[in-house]
Amino acid sequence: MQEPIWDIAHLAHVEMYSPRLEESVQFFTQILGMSVSGRAGKSVYLRAYDDYEHHTLKLTAHPHPGIGHYAWRMRSPQALQRRVAAIEATGHGIGWTEGDLGHGPAYACIHPGGGHRVELYFDSDKYQPGAADASALKNTISRFPGRGANVRRLDHLNLLAKDVKAFRDFQLGTLGGILTETILFENDNPQGVWFAVNAKSYDLAVTCDHLQMENRLHHVTYAVNSREEVLLAADVCLENGIFIEAGPHKHAVQQTFFLYVYEPGGNRIEIANATARLVLDPDYKTIVWTREDRAKGQAWGLETVSSFHTRGTPMPEDLPS
Amino acid sequence: MQEPIWDIAHLAHVEMYSPRLEESVQFFTQILGMSVSGRAGKSVYLRAYDDYEHHTLKLTAHPHPGIGHYAWRMRSPQALQRRVAAIEATGHGIGWTEGDLGHGPAYACIHPGGGHRVELYFDSDKYQPGAADASALKNTISRFPGRGANVRRLDHLNLLAKDVKAFRDFQLGTLGGILTETILFENDNPQGVWFAVNAKSYDLAVTCDHLQMENRLHHVTYAVNSREEVLLAADVCLENGIFIEAGPHKHAVQQTFFLYVYEPGGNRIEIANATARLVLDPDYKTIVWTREDRAKGQAWGLETVSSFHTRGTPMPEDLPS
Amino acid sequence: MQEPIWDIAHLAHVEMYSPRLEESVQFFTQILGMSVSGRAGKSVYLRAYDDYEHHTLKLTAHPHPGIGHYAWRMRSPQALQRRVAAIEATGHGIGWTEGDLGHGPAYACIHPGGGHRVELYFDSDKYQPGAADASALKNTISRFPGRGANVRRLDHLNLLAKDVKAFRDFQLGTLGGILTETILFENDNPQGVWFAVNAKSYDLAVTCDHLQMENRLHHVTYAVNSREEVLLAADVCLENGIFIEAGPHKHAVQQTFFLYVYEPGGNRIEIANATARLVLDPDYKTIVWTREDRAKGQAWGLETVSSFHTRGTPMPEDLPS
Amino acid sequence: MQEPIWDIAHLAHVEMYSPRLEESVQFFTQILGMSVSGRAGKSVYLRAYDDYEHHTLKLTAHPHPGIGHYAWRMRSPQALQRRVAAIEATGHGIGWTEGDLGHGPAYACIHPGGGHRVELYFDSDKYQPGAADASALKNTISRFPGRGANVRRLDHLNLLAKDVKAFRDFQLGTLGGILTETILFENDNPQGVWFAVNAKSYDLAVTCDHLQMENRLHHVTYAVNSREEVLLAADVCLENGIFIEAGPHKHAVQQTFFLYVYEPGGNRIEIANATARLVLDPDYKTIVWTREDRAKGQAWGLETVSSFHTRGTPMPEDLPS
Repeated sequence: MQEPIWDIAHLAHVEMYSPRLEESVQFFTQILGMSVSGRAGKSVYLRAYDDYEHHTLKLTAHPHPGIGHYAWRMRSPQALQRRVAAIEATGHGIGWTEGDLGHGPAYACIHPGGGHRVELYFDSDKYQPGAADASALKNTISRFPGRGANVRRLDHLNLLAKDVKAFRDFQLGTLGGILTETILFENDNPQGVWFAVNAKSYDLAVTCDHLQMENRLHHVTYAVNSREEVLLAADVCLENGIFIEAGPHKHAVQQTFFLYVYEPGGNRIEIANATARLVLDPDYKTIVWTREDRAKGQAWGLETVSSFHTRGTPMPEDLPS
Repeated sequence: MQEPIWDIAHLAHVEMYSPRLEESVQFFTQILGMSVSGRAGKSVYLRAYDDYEHHTLKLTAHPHPGIGHYAWRMRSPQALQRRVAAIEATGHGIGWTEGDLGHGPAYACIHPGGGHRVELYFDSDKYQPGAADASALKNTISRFPGRGANVRRLDHLNLLAKDVKAFRDFQLGTLGGILTETILFENDNPQGVWFAVNAKSYDLAVTCDHLQMENRLHHVTYAVNSREEVLLAADVCLENGIFIEAGPHKHAVQQTFFLYVYEPGGNRIEIANATARLVLDPDYKTIVWTREDRAKGQAWGLETVSSFHTRGTPMPEDLPS
Repeated sequence: MQEPIWDIAHLAHVEMYSPRLEESVQFFTQILGMSVSGRAGKSVYLRAYDDYEHHTLKLTAHPHPGIGHYAWRMRSPQALQRRVAAIEATGHGIGWTEGDLGHGPAYACIHPGGGHRVELYFDSDKYQPGAADASALKNTISRFPGRGANVRRLDHLNLLAKDVKAFRDFQLGTLGGILTETILFENDNPQGVWFAVNAKSYDLAVTCDHLQMENRLHHVTYAVNSREEVLLAADVCLENGIFIEAGPHKHAVQQTFFLYVYEPGGNRIEIANATARLVLDPDYKTIVWTREDRAKGQAWGLETVSSFHTRGTPMPEDLPS
Repeated sequence: MQEPIWDIAHLAHVEMYSPRLEESVQFFTQILGMSVSGRAGKSVYLRAYDDYEHHTLKLTAHPHPGIGHYAWRMRSPQALQRRVAAIEATGHGIGWTEGDLGHGPAYACIHPGGGHRVELYFDSDKYQPGAADASALKNTISRFPGRGANVRRLDHLNLLAKDVKAFRDFQLGTLGGILTETILFENDNPQGVWFAVNAKSYDLAVTCDHLQMENRLHHVTYAVNSREEVLLAADVCLENGIFIEAGPHKHAVQQTFFLYVYEPGGNRIEIANATARLVLDPDYKTIVWTREDRAKGQAWGLETVSSFHTRGTPMPEDLPS
């Protein structure tokens, strides 16, 4: 038995495109309770109060919503080198970047199956709070904001891919992690895959792009400390005119207690809590969800909203014809 | 820079001694909401509803309370072999056991610094629910009990050690994990150390045994899904005559929301929730708590109860003179 | 300005019909966490742990589900006499009963608008716990059960009526309370009315019976201590095969955080939490919900499940043809 | 049996003195999440987001902290007239005021036992939100703020009195309500009394002033929607340097889940949640707490902090010598 690859530490950040940059910044700071940690060029960098890196979200002005790239932070310089070597062996690598605000050189590749750009790096400029945002507790990265949804940290990313199987195989075979859950109907062409790279039950999910487009985003998720705070977030969104697409409710898949909303740029954002669930088992047997399972709806019977199956960013109408 | 050792998957189980075995079993099943998964000899094996292994608690009849041994599950057979080789190189190893109900062969050693017996293994007989306790959700190991405190899973173990520094050095240098937090006063003799072996901020804590005894237990902790459920657990304990030593409150160290009670055998049990806090940073800088920090009490100012510093199991009066 | 009538203290109990009496008893005791406080004839009497009277639910074996009667406890013997005089003046009174297990003589009438039997009484045999169920806290009526949904107390009753306006006018003009909220479309024929008789925002709701039947029940609601416990109740129901019709979600009307399930006898039961909302204003201006308001769905946008508009007990098919 | 007097609707507002007016305003708006609804002379008027009146807190600049007066809103003009007549019959009345910002004429008296000024009124200028703070839900008075502790409404007032028995007798005999709980040691001189005037288990508490001073304040309490939000409030206070005196914990008396802090002016403020507890019983038998009961500490065993027994505002050192 070969050992799984555990070289990835965690999902590090997502670059999200917004056609309404400042409105998006307002959403993430005033509604979600995040903070701006930098601005450069057409981008604004943000983090949640307990995100330890410079940023977990890079908002970039763009003609349409969607995703620019996402990044994994690796467990060590050696782990980074091992993965770069593995990627290069596949021919999918692009090469090294000079880094960005907040982190050092990253190795980029286009992920097979979905066409998304993914970057890997280790060197991180960890966030240093100032007097204005230092927490009273040494083990909190910055002050609990007491503002909006008070999201704590980046939780996971959900991409759309036209070939979920190809995405899965590259992720597991070349980058690492384990497949904790999958939606699998008649054959070995999964409808969805959930990857864990640490004890959290997933850092990345990929579901089938029914429009068979390239490089689309389904949603980015930030975690709050309790399910009660997901409910509070729903009220904050309701009171501020933020469109609620679905929830709060509990997913059957991964059991995440969720709230889905649209940020002003058009991207779907999830505010979630995983309760005390972790996947600690290193040889966890993948949970397989069948067509019959999925017909039951969400955990407590809520029918999945249809836009959840069709909407990703960008939408076809967002793109130049 | 050397890579940290990430060969341990998680804290697997604790063997706890009880002079009142059946009363202890009643406590763990009726008050905490756990289930009995086996009995053998003088031992009863228990698990929480989402523990994936055969057991996370082995209760053994014994003249006094305390700890028999604890075990780490390793990430792979190869990881197990690497750690056994490392232990053997130190001369602290005891050798292989034939395994126990629920797991295969384990390698045992006496941990320097505290005198506790620790076992390492990989082969695990994962728990298979029957019709009576299968969950409606495929990704829950067994049915949410709806009984007592409804603890979800083993969270961590806290030992007392007369030489915390020696314990720390052996753990980090030979077994693995990282030191996420420590209490350190004037010199390099820590009063307490907290080890993470996965994204959970600690699976093992070791604090100074002020009585300088060997092989003592401070507490074993089970996790519930929310802080609200810790409050509910407090009411369940109150209503059933279980002694509450401290809490519910929030620790400054590790931010755990805690409730400490004594089970009928005399051991301290914690029911806790960590909110959404994880330590995802693979080169996390250890948080150091000074004497001044500790003088502030717990997170919201509660003074630490004095028995927390003096009571471990067994107590001197429990032992034959 | 005439003073509102404040002679009713609170909704006292509901007699519910079940064609599967013992299964219904199992549901209320094992799933909701209630206790049996008496049995007589074809009826089983139950209460939640902090209900102060002998019972708040009388389950009676019957060929079909539905409601036998419901009762108001009055604020004083004088208040009871005042309301009896008022009822008698309307000609709707039936007369005095000898009382029942748990309470003294009650005055019965058939409520105009819906055809339900309602009783009024003052003398109450308050529940006296024994050693087995006394609470550790003097101000809790009996022990927190630590079982199932742990419902705390009866919260409210929702009836169906063919003439909601007639029901409303009799309630306000003859029995008492204030109208806190109403659904009112084009004219003065309300689709729904919510009556408060104390600081709780409603003890009784009446919605339009679209089948224009007599004496039908929409649901009975028990309160839990937090929204988190409504979520826990959803898991308890899911794990025990109880059908979840809708929720957990937040109603726009009255803001109740709700979970609707069907008990084995076929009646709809709600498990709810009102957060800290009270209606303290003695001349509260009735909230009017229009057709446009209702088209928005529940508070966070959930579409109201269609069975909520059509299903009451008994259903036409439950009745002899 | 005489009927209890139910003429009081609820505790309406408290005038609190602050020697640091603007800092106090900052505390109530930024930490508690309240809003300023008016300013006049040396006073600032505030309300929580679901308080229905113009204000529930009147902060008045003053050389020392303490209480100016408090007010009851009556159930009707008739109820007001009845109570004024009853007060006048006792000789304790002062007479009518012209009203204040937010309410019409009030009748004032000095309450025997404690020397506090209490006012009674009915005419209320109910709060009308504007576009900037209107809630998305018609039945919420103004928008959920998403700021600080997000307190929902005024909950209760706790006064210190040198003659608790005299206070109790005047309240029950002349003003109204029922005595839900009391602390009573050897004789009929209660150490504490808790009055309910509606279904909430108390709107006013009075405890013994061990310094035997006049007109002192123990604390004012605002309610949040869940116990989880009390925990969040504790973090908000911790992060903003607000002194936490005690809690979060659960009182044995009245079961309130509490957090006590000091606002910048020196007054004690409680942030609390009562769960789903109500006192619906109109002839509720007063719960009597004995010396032995009190020796057990708070509900889960927390020892009552000593300052709770000694500190009220003003303190002797606050007063001119």
